[in-house]
Amino acid sequence: MTNPSLLILPGDGIGPEVMAEVRKIIAWYGDKRDVHFDVSEGLVGGCSYDVHGTPLTDETMELAQSVDAVLLGAVGGPQYDNLDFSVKPERGLLRLRKEMDLYANLRPAQCFDALADFSSLKKDVVAGLDIMIVRELTSGIYFGEPRGIFKEGNERVGINTQRYTESEIERVARSAFELARRRNNKVCSMEKANVMESGILWREVVQRVHDTEYPDVQLSHMYADAGAMQLCRWPKQFDVIVTDNLFGDLLSDAAAMLTGSLGMLPSASLGAPMANGRPKAMYEPVHGSAPDIAGQGKANPIACILSFAMALRYSFDMGDEATRLEAAIEKVLADGARTGDLLGPEGGSPISTAQMGDAIVAAL
Amino acid sequence: MTNPSLLILPGDGIGPEVMAEVRKIIAWYGDKRDVHFDVSEGLVGGCSYDVHGTPLTDETMELAQSVDAVLLGAVGGPQYDNLDFSVKPERGLLRLRKEMDLYANLRPAQCFDALADFSSLKKDVVAGLDIMIVRELTSGIYFGEPRGIFKEGNERVGINTQRYTESEIERVARSAFELARRRNNKVCSMEKANVMESGILWREVVQRVHDTEYPDVQLSHMYADAGAMQLCRWPKQFDVIVTDNLFGDLLSDAAAMLTGSLGMLPSASLGAPMANGRPKAMYEPVHGSAPDIAGQGKANPIACILSFAMALRYSFDMGDEATRLEAAIEKVLADGARTGDLLGPEGGSPISTAQMGDAIVAAL
Ligand SMILES: CC(C)[C@H](C(=O)O)[C@@H](O)C(=O)O
Ligand SMILES: CC(C)[C@H](C(=O)O)[C@@H](O)C(=O)O
Repeated sequence: MTNPSLLILPGDGIGPEVMAEVRKIIAWYGDKRDVHFDVSEGLVGGCSYDVHGTPLTDETMELAQSVDAVLLGAVGGPQYDNLDFSVKPERGLLRLRKEMDLYANLRPAQCFDALADFSSLKKDVVAGLDIMIVRELTSGIYFGEPRGIFKEGNERVGINTQRYTESEIERVARSAFELARRRNNKVCSMEKANVMESGILWREVVQRVHDTEYPDVQLSHMYADAGAMQLCRWPKQFDVIVTDNLFGDLLSDAAAMLTGSLGMLPSASLGAPMANGRPKAMYEPVHGSAPDIAGQGKANPIACILSFAMALRYSFDMGDEATRLEAAIEKVLADGARTGDLLGPEGGSPISTAQMGDAIVAAL
Repeated sequence: MTNPSLLILPGDGIGPEVMAEVRKIIAWYGDKRDVHFDVSEGLVGGCSYDVHGTPLTDETMELAQSVDAVLLGAVGGPQYDNLDFSVKPERGLLRLRKEMDLYANLRPAQCFDALADFSSLKKDVVAGLDIMIVRELTSGIYFGEPRGIFKEGNERVGINTQRYTESEIERVARSAFELARRRNNKVCSMEKANVMESGILWREVVQRVHDTEYPDVQLSHMYADAGAMQLCRWPKQFDVIVTDNLFGDLLSDAAAMLTGSLGMLPSASLGAPMANGRPKAMYEPVHGSAPDIAGQGKANPIACILSFAMALRYSFDMGDEATRLEAAIEKVLADGARTGDLLGPEGGSPISTAQMGDAIVAAL
């Protein structure tokens, strides 16, 4: 039997730092449990542009297509802000999502007990919160044509196209319903069907998939603006939220921030099953490249380590190991270990990225 | 000199109830201060569809074009959910915005002292909050063509088009900079320039308007997903936010909810100056038609009354009267008057919509 294969793409900013801590976890699995991964590494984002003039080379794209899972750190940084659109760091990430066809982006918004005080929301609003946002990731306004900046009379016009086919909506709806069955059996679908025809089709298709395939799951619909409100007011009313690429971008970021645990949140982007039955998959922390603290050993590696835990669960059939790793992290937090981002206004002494990684390895 | 003219469109749900309280304020101005308005009234939304088969008749549209200001309650309700897209209640509202060319939607997100405890956010995060979201209201994905649900092969596809011209961005940017000068001189512009070409054009034009016309105002740019996060984390970092129609819809609703004062928030939608020098204008509460409590005398009329106060200020050159009306509302709240929506989980005895209106008139 061959080892499961993992492509690591640390990316920009704090990406390499937090990924170094994941490497420690992987090493621990080899040393202590004789579980080995075939790990390869590549460039994505600004660091790839610096070397190759493109945020993702064809070779790295091919490698990503061939492995069992990809683990990505973060992309982007101010030094790339004025690059041409086609070679911006983000294009590397978007190409991976699109060409691997990772249509279901799972973004848990979860409040860690040890951190409930840290939210800007009142403790009773967020304590124990555990919702899952399923964001469509390969279509919508992120990829629709026509797009671009065009000349029209004597001025320019910027155009993007929101575009969803029935089958694109169907498959991501199924992902949401499947997840809900393993959770609290509730799905809320969000769009702007009162304003956008693409939202009307979205609502109709989600309802049809529900009625024909998942009548046992509780389904509701909400306009996305009301959804943003309700997430801020009483997020615990939700279990699984399914929404499009752009709404999902905003809503999942807001939800992540509400938990007070932003430096803690992982995500999984899943596609269709491969020959081995497991989905194509890429895992990444929800947080960005945080250029302001990059290279200083201040970053919190937990979101990236939890992304690896998601890989263990969804790509490597090691749900028990994932649970063990998550428990080790809970323990380290309960013992009081805190990177800088986890300290409230009261302060305290932060530990470094490497110290946090070491503590988690020790707790394992 | 003729009286200023006002078209009242109560609309659906709680619209008529809250508008009745505005009528009391208007009557007070006539009786006690000899200030008279030429008030006309019309139908918009579902109630117009019920009578005329359209959410806005051409006659009402013409009337709206001819008056100094429009005051709208709210539109929509579940009984209209299955109407054809073209006659949904919302189309009436959108037609008013588009044909009056009300391109700048001013949405204050303000936390009323008496209600700071009522937010789902911690008190220190929201107490004293006072930001202004300027949302572009007549373009973008709300109105762009092509749009619709089309057949493609053997499935359907839902399409909407995001579309901004330079001049559309310029004029709303100017509105934001003008407002900032009268406030704390800071504008933050939000888009997704990392993903959308329309966002690139947006950012470039806002920057150009700043550099050439408003170099004295402090300008920053933020991706809209990060903006959603930062609104949830520390909203006081903002003064004026300027953003497009769709992002503005979500971000302003989230911001309004964060203040804990949703039933309290007014909005103004302003267009180009008319012959008399004042802008075309429509005023409406930020809250919706709340069909669940409609007709029960439970609704909070304050948002609608504050919308009338905005009309006094922006359309009728009566800034002092607006300030007096706002002070009367603050006093009534400080005295403990609360409609049901303003009572926390601790409860208390709510007063009715009419009692709140009466209390405000008495305080005047
Ligand atoms: C970096 C950017 C392209 C990306 C997105 O907009 O999808 C990010 O915000 C995210 O949510 O993963
Ligand atoms: C009712 C609806 C059409 C409207 C919008 O989406 O603009 C509302 O949500 C608003 O924000 O005024």
